Amino acid sequence: MPPRRRSLPLTGTMATMTTADFSALTRFMATCRERVDEQMARYLPDQNSPAPRLAEAMRYAALGGGKRIRPVLVYGSCLLAGGRLEDADVPAVVIELIHAYSLVHDDLPAMDDDALRRGRATTHIAFDEATAILAGDTLHTLAFELLANAGDYTDSQRINMVRQLSHAAGAEGMAAGQMQDMEANGQALSLSALERVHYLKTGRLITAALALGAIAAEAAPPLRQTLRAYGDAIGLAFQIQDDILDVTAATEELGKPSGSDLRHAKSTFPGLLGIDGSRARAADLCQQACALLDAHAHGEGVDTRQLKDLAAYIVARTH
Amino acid sequence: MPPRRRSLPLTGTMATMTTADFSALTRFMATCRERVDEQMARYLPDQNSPAPRLAEAMRYAALGGGKRIRPVLVYGSCLLAGGRLEDADVPAVVIELIHAYSLVHDDLPAMDDDALRRGRATTHIAFDEATAILAGDTLHTLAFELLANAGDYTDSQRINMVRQLSHAAGAEGMAAGQMQDMEANGQALSLSALERVHYLKTGRLITAALALGAIAAEAAPPLRQTLRAYGDAIGLAFQIQDDILDVTAATEELGKPSGSDLRHAKSTFPGLLGIDGSRARAADLCQQACALLDAHAHGEGVDTRQLKDLAAYIVARTH
Repeated sequence: MPPRRRSLPLTGTMATMTTADFSALTRFMATCRERVDEQMARYLPDQNSPAPRLAEAMRYAALGGGKRIRPVLVYGSCLLAGGRLEDADVPAVVIELIHAYSLVHDDLPAMDDDALRRGRATTHIAFDEATAILAGDTLHTLAFELLANAGDYTDSQRINMVRQLSHAAGAEGMAAGQMQDMEANGQALSLSALERVHYLKTGRLITAALALGAIAAEAAPPLRQTLRAYGDAIGLAFQIQDDILDVTAATEELGKPSGSDLRHAKSTFPGLLGIDGSRARAADLCQQACALLDAHAHGEGVDTRQLKDLAAYIVARTH
Repeated sequence: MPPRRRSLPLTGTMATMTTADFSALTRFMATCRERVDEQMARYLPDQNSPAPRLAEAMRYAALGGGKRIRPVLVYGSCLLAGGRLEDADVPAVVIELIHAYSLVHDDLPAMDDDALRRGRATTHIAFDEATAILAGDTLHTLAFELLANAGDYTDSQRINMVRQLSHAAGAEGMAAGQMQDMEANGQALSLSALERVHYLKTGRLITAALALGAIAAEAAPPLRQTLRAYGDAIGLAFQIQDDILDVTAATEELGKPSGSDLRHAKSTFPGLLGIDGSRARAADLCQQACALLDAHAHGEGVDTRQLKDLAAYIVARTH
């Protein structure tokens, strides 16, 4: 069946891109979400653990809903590279555990001091600060424990995944971005400085999601490179859209307080580029990402539909 | 040269054990400490990192002195299993990074709320809480990043080390012990419950140190098993001695406030067994540990001197 032409709620060139209908993506995302939630529920410790309350807090933090964008990217990357969905289960879980750990710690009173996340009390509110610190820590450790033990991978695949994930999450990746973000509160950042913060804080883990999917499928280096570049583009688009939604969406729709960037006196893309300028930049990044996939797929018969739809979804989403 | 008989400041059977002089151990420990500090200084991020203040806090927390008992165990285990000192450098760094991360987080106001560690201000006092949380997080991540990248190991060795370390540190290991320890504040624990807390909180990482050294030296499974059992015994002895010192030593000598167990209304070994009973139990564990090494070494020509001296040192130390 040839792809249908349709309109996306986007400005500029994106509005005329040809792609599959969002309904296919919605089904794919639901499949991924169910898979990753089921696998996480299986791998997370439960009340038989030596510290049942800690296990409960880990499950609360990790299983509390969310879009599961990063796992969807792992699955999408793995499929595009010729792997099967089940090949991506462990890295999908692992990337979400790292994301969940970072949210638990970022929400702490000493950090961003947020009481609401995904429409529920944050972990330190639902439990207590000490338990939240430890739950973040143990979600973090569990990610590496699963990469070493779970599923069916070669040692080389496993250690490559540890390499990608640790580099993306650490002191020169996600955590450095969170540090820069805190230090920038109340300061006016240039566009390039703001992009740098978000590349570290959000982009590195998104790019790692694509790298993990590619490793799980044993993708060849050129495709791994393409997927990383795609990840860099959509990672930034994702953050721009987050900033737009913080301004335009209601708290209820977001599941966290809207307007919190303003409250924290943060530099944002809408603040620097305006809403329309931000939308145009996100759409451009989305198109760049899709063009990278097209350039790779050209003549290779690769199905790029899911990741192209995902790029479009990232800038079209309303929460 | 035959081993010399000498007296150790221990009760019971330990006093008559034959072993090398402590001066050889002291030199070995100094060598290990220098090696691991030099390697850590090399691998920790510096002011060229994207988040220089975070890098500074990581260096403060990791390079601030300390006995480096866990790295010494990694080196000792590796040598006993026929490896070279340099084979143990990366796991020695890694085990100390995990220990340092756990100290930074355990010292936080929401956890044990300690202001002094190794004779200096704790990380959240010297910096701030948010930076301390992130520094703990990034020391934690760096451990796994180094296992994936640093030194010269096979993928199989690397992933085996990730497996041992993550299992020892996580929600069914060290972090579970910290959770149990916090939950036990103000409660009277039985001896077996207290031993269980400490087995998780301290013992698991000590046993992992020995396992990592054995993996680095590519030790055969029976020796790995012996080293783990040795680790289980000295890990508990180590914690008993910590409890004894908390009662008997001055704050200055400890580098952290003495009497803090009493202040936190914690169950302790001296509280349950008395000081003399605790000393006897630690000495028994030390002798068990040495007997395990002897049983393995019998007829194999293995040099068990360092790890036997270490066992003796652990129960004889005054800080």
